Amino acid sequence: MPIALDLMGGDAAPESIIAGAAQAIREDGQSLLLFGHQDHCAALLKQYELSEGDAPFIHCDDVVPMDAKPARAMRQRASSMAQALKAVAEGRAGAAVSAGASGAFMALGLRELGRLPGVSRPAIALTLPGYPMRRMFLDGGANTLCSPGMLEEFALMGSIYAHLVLGIARPRVGLLCNGEEDGKGTDLTRAAADLMAANESFNFTGYAEGNDLFQGPFDVIITDGFTGNVCLKTLEGTVRFVVDNLKRELKADLVSSLGGLMAKGAFGRLKKTLDPRHHGGAPLLGLNGVAIVAHGRSDALAIRSALRVASNCAQQEVSSTMVEQLRSLDEQRQSTKG
Amino acid sequence: MPIALDLMGGDAAPESIIAGAAQAIREDGQSLLLFGHQDHCAALLKQYELSEGDAPFIHCDDVVPMDAKPARAMRQRASSMAQALKAVAEGRAGAAVSAGASGAFMALGLRELGRLPGVSRPAIALTLPGYPMRRMFLDGGANTLCSPGMLEEFALMGSIYAHLVLGIARPRVGLLCNGEEDGKGTDLTRAAADLMAANESFNFTGYAEGNDLFQGPFDVIITDGFTGNVCLKTLEGTVRFVVDNLKRELKADLVSSLGGLMAKGAFGRLKKTLDPRHHGGAPLLGLNGVAIVAHGRSDALAIRSALRVASNCAQQEVSSTMVEQLRSLDEQRQSTKG
Repeated sequence: MPIALDLMGGDAAPESIIAGAAQAIREDGQSLLLFGHQDHCAALLKQYELSEGDAPFIHCDDVVPMDAKPARAMRQRASSMAQALKAVAEGRAGAAVSAGASGAFMALGLRELGRLPGVSRPAIALTLPGYPMRRMFLDGGANTLCSPGMLEEFALMGSIYAHLVLGIARPRVGLLCNGEEDGKGTDLTRAAADLMAANESFNFTGYAEGNDLFQGPFDVIITDGFTGNVCLKTLEGTVRFVVDNLKRELKADLVSSLGGLMAKGAFGRLKKTLDPRHHGGAPLLGLNGVAIVAHGRSDALAIRSALRVASNCAQQEVSSTMVEQLRSLDEQRQSTKG
Repeated sequence: MPIALDLMGGDAAPESIIAGAAQAIREDGQSLLLFGHQDHCAALLKQYELSEGDAPFIHCDDVVPMDAKPARAMRQRASSMAQALKAVAEGRAGAAVSAGASGAFMALGLRELGRLPGVSRPAIALTLPGYPMRRMFLDGGANTLCSPGMLEEFALMGSIYAHLVLGIARPRVGLLCNGEEDGKGTDLTRAAADLMAANESFNFTGYAEGNDLFQGPFDVIITDGFTGNVCLKTLEGTVRFVVDNLKRELKADLVSSLGGLMAKGAFGRLKKTLDPRHHGGAPLLGLNGVAIVAHGRSDALAIRSALRVASNCAQQEVSSTMVEQLRSLDEQRQSTKG
C-alpha cells in the first residue's frame, strides 16, 4: 500500500518535500501518493522528474499554514494534510506523512482516523539517538495535561512500538521523574508509577531522570506533554549551544582550526548522530491508522527517513498489534471498576 | 566576615574541600572558618599546610552522609553542615558553603537561618553558562510542588540576584513553558504569568522555552522544582552524550584523532564553558542568610568558585536587598486580599 505524503507542510515546502519524495521513490523504492496544490507543485514535480507513473499526484484546493491553530485547520477540509489522512482512513494509503503544523495534524488525524479503542489521547512518540541503542520518548508535547491512565497507555503503546519498529525484544520502560527519594515526584508520577508497576503487558523498570534520556538503562521514557516539550527543547538547545561553542572555539586559534579541518570526518559522524533528520518521523501513537509527523524544518533527507518510518509502521501493523493489548488494558480497567 | 566551609560534604570530601580551601585562602585571599571532624581532617590540613593562623578549624562530632535524608540530618545537631550554618546565624560568618546532600543543607538552612519575611519556600538558584552572558535558573529542584505565588517570589529573588551578583542592569525574567499558543501551559504557568506580569518590581518578559536556556533573550528563567530538576539533568545528560560521542568519533579514524590533538586548545576552552565547576555554587535564595550549595562532585576548583560566589553574596548583601522588595510584595498581597 502506498504512503500518502502532504507536499504542502514544512518550512521549506513544497520543494524539500518533493525532493524527498523523489529520493524515496528512486533510492528506497517507496510507493507514494502525493497531496498538494497544483499551482505550487506542478513545476517542481517536473523539475524533480516525477510523473504520474512514479507517484499519482492529487490536487488539493487548500493548504494548512505552518502556524495554523488546530481549530482553523479543522475547517480546511480540502487541505492536502486532511486529504492525505483521509486516504489512510479510506484504505487507499497505509500511512500519512506531514511536516506541517503538528497540532493541526493531530487534530485532523483524530477526525479522519479516530483513536484506537481504549486510548484516551494519542501521543507524539519521538525516537532519540542513544548509546548504544536508540530509544523512544513520549509524549513529545501533544498533551499538556495528562492523567495517570494516559501515561500508562503511552507506556503500553511506546513499548509495542519499540518492539516492532526498533526491534527491541522486551523494551525497558521508565517514567520520567525528579528522583526516587521520598518527597520526590508529583501526584501524577506516583499514581502513574503504581499503574505501570501493576501492568504486566510491558516491562516497567522504574523512574528515569533527565540524564537517562540518552545513556540510561531505558528503551522507552514516558512523561506528560508539558515536561516532554520542555525536555526536548532543552535537549535541542543544549546540542546547539555545545556545537556553536565548539565551532567558535575551533576558529579562535590557528592550530585548533587546522585540527578542526582534519577532524571533519569525526564532526560529520557526530552531526549525523545528533541530527534529528536521521531519526525519522514521530508517529502519533494511538490514532487508528499510521500518521507520522516530520520535523517542520524537514529537508529531503528528513522526509525520506520519515517515509521509511511510515512504511515500517504500516508493514509491522503497529496499530493493529496495539489494538489487542489496549483491549486487554481496557478489560482490566473495567474489571477493577466493577 | 569569614565564610563558613563544611569540610565533610561532597563525594571527595574532605580532601577536595580542604584542597579548595587552601587555594581560596592563598589565591583569592579568602577568609574562612573550617568545620569538620578532626580525625578526618587533621592530617589533610597539615598536608595542605593550613594552620589555625590561615583559617580556624572547628571540630564537629558528626557528619551528614551524602545520601542523608533531610529528617535524619535534622537530628545531627553536631554535624559540620549544621555548625557551619549556625555560624552564619550567629553572625560569626558571612555565608556557609557545603557540597553535601543539598536536601539536608536546605532543611538545616531553614532551621538555622529561617526564611526571609514574605518567602514561602527558598529555591536553588543555578548559574548556567550562556551566550553571550551567563544566566540564572531556578528552582533547580528544591520544591517539587510550587504555587503561582512561589514562582513570583522566585522571579523577584532571581532578578535581584542576577542584578547584584551577575551585574545585569535590568534582568529579563522568563517563565519556562511549553509554548505560548492557546492550550499551552498549565494552570500553574498561567496563574504565575499573570502574577509576574502584574509585578513591576522585576522585568517579566514572557514565556521561555527549553531551547532558551542558553541562548534565548532571558537572564533569569523561572520554573517549579520538578520541571527544573528534569531540565537540568536533561541538560547535563545531553552535554555528556555530545562530548562522549565526539570523543568516540575522534578516535575512530587516524586523521580525525590527529586533528583532535591539534584542536585540544579549542576543546579545553569548550570544556571550561560547559564545566559546572567554573560556574560556582548555587545559592539557596530565600533563606535569611547566605547558604551556597556546591556540586556534590566538587573538586578544589569547584569549591574555590563556590567560595567566591559566597563572598560576593555576602558583600553585596543579597539577602538584605531582598528583604525590602519582598516586604513590598507582601504588602501588595495583603492589600489585594483586604
